[in-house]
Amino acid sequence: MKNNNPYNSGLEQNKANFRPLTPIEFIQRAAEVYPHHPAVIYGDITRNWEQTYRRCLKLADALSRRGIGVGDTVSALLPNMPELLELHFAVPMIGAVLNAQNTRMDADTIAFMLDHSDCNVLFCDREFSDLASNALNSCAKPPLVIDVDDPTFNGGRPLGELSYQQLLLEGDENYVWQAPADEWQAITLNYTSGTTGNPKGVVYHHRGAYLNATSNIIGQNLPPQAVYLWTLPMFHCNGWCYPWAVTAVAGTHVCLRHLRADQVYQAINRYGVTHFCAAPVVLNMLLNAPEEQKTYFDHPVTVTTGGAAPPASIIEGMEKIGIQVVHAYGLTESYGPSVFCAFQSEWKDLKLEQKAEKMARQGVKAPALSALMVADPISLQPVPMDGISMGEVFIQSNTLMKGYLKNTQATTEAFQDGWFHTGDLAVRHPDGYIEIKDRAKDVIISGGENISTIEIEDLLYRHPDIFEAAVIAKPDEHWGEVPCAVVTLKGPEQGADPKIVTEQQIINFCRDRIAHFKCPKQVIFAPLPKTSTGKVRKNQLRALLQKG
Amino acid sequence: MKNNNPYNSGLEQNKANFRPLTPIEFIQRAAEVYPHHPAVIYGDITRNWEQTYRRCLKLADALSRRGIGVGDTVSALLPNMPELLELHFAVPMIGAVLNAQNTRMDADTIAFMLDHSDCNVLFCDREFSDLASNALNSCAKPPLVIDVDDPTFNGGRPLGELSYQQLLLEGDENYVWQAPADEWQAITLNYTSGTTGNPKGVVYHHRGAYLNATSNIIGQNLPPQAVYLWTLPMFHCNGWCYPWAVTAVAGTHVCLRHLRADQVYQAINRYGVTHFCAAPVVLNMLLNAPEEQKTYFDHPVTVTTGGAAPPASIIEGMEKIGIQVVHAYGLTESYGPSVFCAFQSEWKDLKLEQKAEKMARQGVKAPALSALMVADPISLQPVPMDGISMGEVFIQSNTLMKGYLKNTQATTEAFQDGWFHTGDLAVRHPDGYIEIKDRAKDVIISGGENISTIEIEDLLYRHPDIFEAAVIAKPDEHWGEVPCAVVTLKGPEQGADPKIVTEQQIINFCRDRIAHFKCPKQVIFAPLPKTSTGKVRKNQLRALLQKG
Repeated sequence: MKNNNPYNSGLEQNKANFRPLTPIEFIQRAAEVYPHHPAVIYGDITRNWEQTYRRCLKLADALSRRGIGVGDTVSALLPNMPELLELHFAVPMIGAVLNAQNTRMDADTIAFMLDHSDCNVLFCDREFSDLASNALNSCAKPPLVIDVDDPTFNGGRPLGELSYQQLLLEGDENYVWQAPADEWQAITLNYTSGTTGNPKGVVYHHRGAYLNATSNIIGQNLPPQAVYLWTLPMFHCNGWCYPWAVTAVAGTHVCLRHLRADQVYQAINRYGVTHFCAAPVVLNMLLNAPEEQKTYFDHPVTVTTGGAAPPASIIEGMEKIGIQVVHAYGLTESYGPSVFCAFQSEWKDLKLEQKAEKMARQGVKAPALSALMVADPISLQPVPMDGISMGEVFIQSNTLMKGYLKNTQATTEAFQDGWFHTGDLAVRHPDGYIEIKDRAKDVIISGGENISTIEIEDLLYRHPDIFEAAVIAKPDEHWGEVPCAVVTLKGPEQGADPKIVTEQQIINFCRDRIAHFKCPKQVIFAPLPKTSTGKVRKNQLRALLQKG
Repeated sequence: MKNNNPYNSGLEQNKANFRPLTPIEFIQRAAEVYPHHPAVIYGDITRNWEQTYRRCLKLADALSRRGIGVGDTVSALLPNMPELLELHFAVPMIGAVLNAQNTRMDADTIAFMLDHSDCNVLFCDREFSDLASNALNSCAKPPLVIDVDDPTFNGGRPLGELSYQQLLLEGDENYVWQAPADEWQAITLNYTSGTTGNPKGVVYHHRGAYLNATSNIIGQNLPPQAVYLWTLPMFHCNGWCYPWAVTAVAGTHVCLRHLRADQVYQAINRYGVTHFCAAPVVLNMLLNAPEEQKTYFDHPVTVTTGGAAPPASIIEGMEKIGIQVVHAYGLTESYGPSVFCAFQSEWKDLKLEQKAEKMARQGVKAPALSALMVADPISLQPVPMDGISMGEVFIQSNTLMKGYLKNTQATTEAFQDGWFHTGDLAVRHPDGYIEIKDRAKDVIISGGENISTIEIEDLLYRHPDIFEAAVIAKPDEHWGEVPCAVVTLKGPEQGADPKIVTEQQIINFCRDRIAHFKCPKQVIFAPLPKTSTGKVRKNQLRALLQKG
């Protein structure tokens, strides 16, 4: 090893050879290289990349003229529409931070987020005017409100001082955006849909957004000019970074305000959609759509799914209509999916059940991930790759948040020992694929044994009459905890005849298939409360159980 | 704008969320995710990713045990073989710098490079033992020599203390590679094949190698498990970063020691090659191969070409056998191609001549490029996008070298004013595509007018009897300079009957087609001296002209 390293001398960074990584460059390149290619389609509106880029520049300039800049927060209560896509570029162009809010939150939570982030500007769609109005009423320091007035939506009312359209008129399309001073600069803020306590504000940075976007492209094989359908909410971890990824390949964003099976089928056909993302429940909805709405796609379509493991029936059903399912796993803290189930060519020859079993696992590192490990949460010793030993999932990656806004303690805890602690429990299979078994806080400890609620839920989903299922711990004097299942049965919406299924029949179904100590001791027939992102609110179910 | 930016507080980088970008992670992931997938194919040898990764770890450990580390230089005189691919990962794993040398250089130049880079270790293939031996004899401080003993090659002799195989035995496959302390750390050294003076040592860094690899993947649409054929020398700008790009998609590297048309055709067919890179002369060779060697490919194959504009006949010929041609442009200083001719869908409907005219341009920014400009070299004012106004090509990008090793002056000049000065002259077309017209030092100034030598060469290539052509400036008392053409005619190798073509016929051919002041005033029939990368040595031609 050299004492005087000649490779460090006279070879410093300069303005030409070192540029902060930022996804803003993606839209600049798209507009330069493919100016006339459709950037965004929404109902009757189609705008090309040149038009979209110009709108972003105007918007950035207009916000800048109103004093918004580095370190300021711009929030949005918007559905999947072109304006929300534009905000993903315009807000970072002035160094401000975009906070796309979950439109299914309650007013109190929204008020909390507006205050906690010192929000300066809120963009609001009429569909959410009641919600926003309630939130603004309890806000300590209400932001400037700008209405996004979508003529295709009836209802609601404008709340703000001016409209998006009027704001654009204040801006100059010759605005010169500034790269962030540092690629570590914050770009967006995403509040976790925490099921307990106040939501935590997860801060993303320019570098991570750039790298996760390219990781999506490489991992999910987005070709140049990919056509992406917005079924996943753009407010959900910034749409898993697809606003940036699809723009980086100068693709086309097809936006839908509401998620309806017929519209999804139509859009895929009409625009030649190549990729979309959706939770398994959405895929279920597509498969259970009336036959006359359904269609077979003869061009390649890939759906990336997450939040829950896709059952074999969904994988098979989607393949039958020509859609390849890729299971992925991630958290708000990791810019969305950071692990995905890379398909191995030898799986092609497996029988469906076996193939689905492989494909339903969460998988392996996404390209951007530096390290993924399943390990003992105390010693950080990796568990054996035996598909049985459970440990916590740990990550190291440039695609991890800066931390939680104004919450140093939670940030420090999350990153303790130089690893991000996901709080998810998993096993690692001999082929290196991880399979999530539970949230650390959901796992059931019965007579000293860990029981994975996900394993029981997967089994319940295989019951022919069960539509949805969640398993929670029920306090038990003898065992400490025992599993309790909450299920809903298939009804006419799922094309099923109403049927009488008893608690005992379901318990027996389980006892025939898994170890008895893992079987639910109780089955409750009730609808499942869910977060806006489709996750079951197990804390509410547990409260329900407490009440009796 | 906030005085106290809350997004900068308690949100610092840590070991979990900030990792230096390095292409070493690509091979680690390939080995983890696709351990059994073929990584490299060379003759009868096929090794999968797990095997290849282990060999890299052993090699890294063995070099490390011999005291090689951060800031040291490891050189190679190797053809496109698995060992050279492995060096692209093993050498950076210990923080050292790989200098893959051009095997077509002369011994003096190689000796210069070994001394200039303080080379510690030289890996040498028997094919180049005479060359290496001569170089080592005139070396001030000869490095440790390690023979790569390829049983498929007959001839030459071992020169070194030990063989690659023996070295591997000294290493442990459980070696834990260290990420670079800083992503700006040097990763490779590539000497420019300068036509005058000593070659300059271009230093690449980990960050740039990572980003140019992902840029290749996105720009050239490398799918997961792409199959890449090594026709471009791996020593040429580190094979345009494809050793890293193909590994990042866990693809397969198909290596060929010698470039022979029959082997290229066979490899594409046999292994389902999806991508390769080659200069237009190589494509010419493929098209001029005997009919019985040629074949039509019914799977998608893309060739990226550069160094010279591909003539319409080559674009058409390649398409006829099922290969899509993409023209690219770059320099050693820019990690290879940083500009490429992105295909616009509306070109599909153009007639061949028009389509080829579009496709033969150098094009637009590659995904990793931050800025590309054609501007006045003094004022840095961009030229109008009219396809006529000539200016110098300037670049800003993370995929630009750190600088020239031990040459601060050249580094400073290259990066003056915050832009990399390419020394290439181009026009920019109304659609934003650039078209290189000349090297700044080759352009002919005749009666105050700039004449692009490339424009005249393109025309000469359209002459049915001309095989190769180069145009240089000839001093002229009246005009200052006038164009002089040096040409070779097609012979039996090109399937042509020998023909008598006169100087005057060629001049007339030009006068019928372009402005008379641009036409060659003299035509010399002579072979064209070329650099190892296929570029015509115009300085030698100019010397020839001086002499006679």
